Amino acid sequence: MTALLRMSVEEHIALSTLVLTGFGVPEAAAREQAELLLEGDLRGHASHGLRRLDMLAQRLRSGAVRAAARPTSTWTTASVLVVDGDGGLGPPVARRAVEELLAKVAETGVAVAAVRNANHLGMLAPYVESMAAAGVIAIALTTSEALVHPWGGTRALVGTNPLAVAVPVPGEDPVVLDMATGQVSRGKVLDHAARGLPLAPGHAVDSAGVPTTDAAAAVDGAISPFGGPKGYALGLMLEVLVATLTRTALGEEVRGTLDPTDPSTKGDLFIAIDPTAFGSGAAPVAAYLAALRATSPAPGHDRVLVPGDRARATRATNLADGVPVSQVTWARAQQIAADVPERP
Amino acid sequence: MTALLRMSVEEHIALSTLVLTGFGVPEAAAREQAELLLEGDLRGHASHGLRRLDMLAQRLRSGAVRAAARPTSTWTTASVLVVDGDGGLGPPVARRAVEELLAKVAETGVAVAAVRNANHLGMLAPYVESMAAAGVIAIALTTSEALVHPWGGTRALVGTNPLAVAVPVPGEDPVVLDMATGQVSRGKVLDHAARGLPLAPGHAVDSAGVPTTDAAAAVDGAISPFGGPKGYALGLMLEVLVATLTRTALGEEVRGTLDPTDPSTKGDLFIAIDPTAFGSGAAPVAAYLAALRATSPAPGHDRVLVPGDRARATRATNLADGVPVSQVTWARAQQIAADVPERP
Repeated sequence: MTALLRMSVEEHIALSTLVLTGFGVPEAAAREQAELLLEGDLRGHASHGLRRLDMLAQRLRSGAVRAAARPTSTWTTASVLVVDGDGGLGPPVARRAVEELLAKVAETGVAVAAVRNANHLGMLAPYVESMAAAGVIAIALTTSEALVHPWGGTRALVGTNPLAVAVPVPGEDPVVLDMATGQVSRGKVLDHAARGLPLAPGHAVDSAGVPTTDAAAAVDGAISPFGGPKGYALGLMLEVLVATLTRTALGEEVRGTLDPTDPSTKGDLFIAIDPTAFGSGAAPVAAYLAALRATSPAPGHDRVLVPGDRARATRATNLADGVPVSQVTWARAQQIAADVPERP
Repeated sequence: MTALLRMSVEEHIALSTLVLTGFGVPEAAAREQAELLLEGDLRGHASHGLRRLDMLAQRLRSGAVRAAARPTSTWTTASVLVVDGDGGLGPPVARRAVEELLAKVAETGVAVAAVRNANHLGMLAPYVESMAAAGVIAIALTTSEALVHPWGGTRALVGTNPLAVAVPVPGEDPVVLDMATGQVSRGKVLDHAARGLPLAPGHAVDSAGVPTTDAAAAVDGAISPFGGPKGYALGLMLEVLVATLTRTALGEEVRGTLDPTDPSTKGDLFIAIDPTAFGSGAAPVAAYLAALRATSPAPGHDRVLVPGDRARATRATNLADGVPVSQVTWARAQQIAADVPERP
């Protein structure tokens, strides 16, 4: 178990930004990327945190991420935004798409942005949360490398295809879902393999497609879809939906977030819906959520949570105690910073 | 095991329509409702088939379903349709909403309909399939009675909240997802209880919130969410999303599809997205689906399916062999027809 450091938000942001600007990424874009890495660590998802800076640096070095990308966007109808990220970092492209959606949705009631040629967005929750903070219901979808086997299949042919949704609740925190459609993350499989720990039953198969709890065997196999055939169907549906609207790759052709050199071929979709466009009145959402949180817990559970509760609590704790980063990751990030080319 | 009859499509439609028009439902609306009952039986979901005619008749008799409903709809923005079903049968209201969305989405690229005060829609797949047949991506959501316990909770506080999505695939059948977010349907729990059959582990809890495979105990308990905490979070999210946009009830306040007298307090949401609004090019969806269907099956599986494949095959078989209806259900429907009041 590697030691955990506690960094300040400023240190965390500064180190990422230093590396990214060193590769020629404009200051504002570098900061947006740094903020997404920060959110990964703040929420306890180290795989989406500073640990990813290494891959980003490699991809900037190889040109798979274009530092000086000039994303473009076009409203093809009053409610449809088509975005081409020009091979740039994901967060600046996605942040811009979100801003355009927010500016538009007050007028149209609903708006959709389809993004291609952007790199990894990081965690999806921060995007939908920022839209919910503006009073807008948000759905974010993205395709990802094929790591999950189809239900009844043996090989990885489906992405982990995460899904994030946020619904604002007047006067309260929003309800926020941010989940992948695999039983377990690739990061956890690799981590358990490195540490010799088993996986939970049903979480993965080996290279022959046989269910295994041996994480090392799962590294060469595939992750199982969450929730059996329904979860497979949902994950596949999201993949087909995103690819259809973004005109991007599917299955094994989705590349570019887990390797240093392949251009990103995934797609991202954002849907914004303005509740105020749906007439007068309001649903008793706050009272319902209160009843859920107050219901008796089952044996072995402390209490019932509403989606978003745990991430919000973890984030608050880490903001207070310092951003958790493993010593290995911090040392590696400092090494990367030392190796960064001279600023152009 | 009750004997299974094989009816013609015409017999099936005629019997439902006779009952519904007998209660004063206009011919066209009665036929739309009858078609949805037919689809339930054609797809092998008897709980959404002719078996439901009994409850519909009781609800028409009590006035909980208004035979002479006059649904209204308003475009509140260019892309948002707000529909009030006036307490009428669900399918005619939903069919009309779908038609309005299809007429609009070619212009706007995306459109959303929020429906309230409509009764049970029946299976959601036929609605999204009809939109996919017009080349439009469709998402259908509906809230339902609280039958599912929250993850970590003991009591039923969340609906089974079904989700249907269809994505058209040029030159091929669409990909069609139609799933509820419970591990098992209420109908199956009741059926297994009546027949003394066990439930699968993890599918339900008893009245104390303890996991049980005893279907009779589960009748007084709650259905478990599919896919553990992720499935709970997804189902809850759909509930909050639909209720927020339709201004309808949540949790235990959702009523009116399982009882003879309560007005329907659920909501329904339809989202239509026109892929042609998203610029030129196309994703290689057909090739991807072919690769999925051709991949090696895992031990114990015949082959890998794409969502919609099984329902399509079942429907085709039943169209050829006759619509399967249990003898009990058919006899009951004939009895209801005999008891129908004189036409007004």
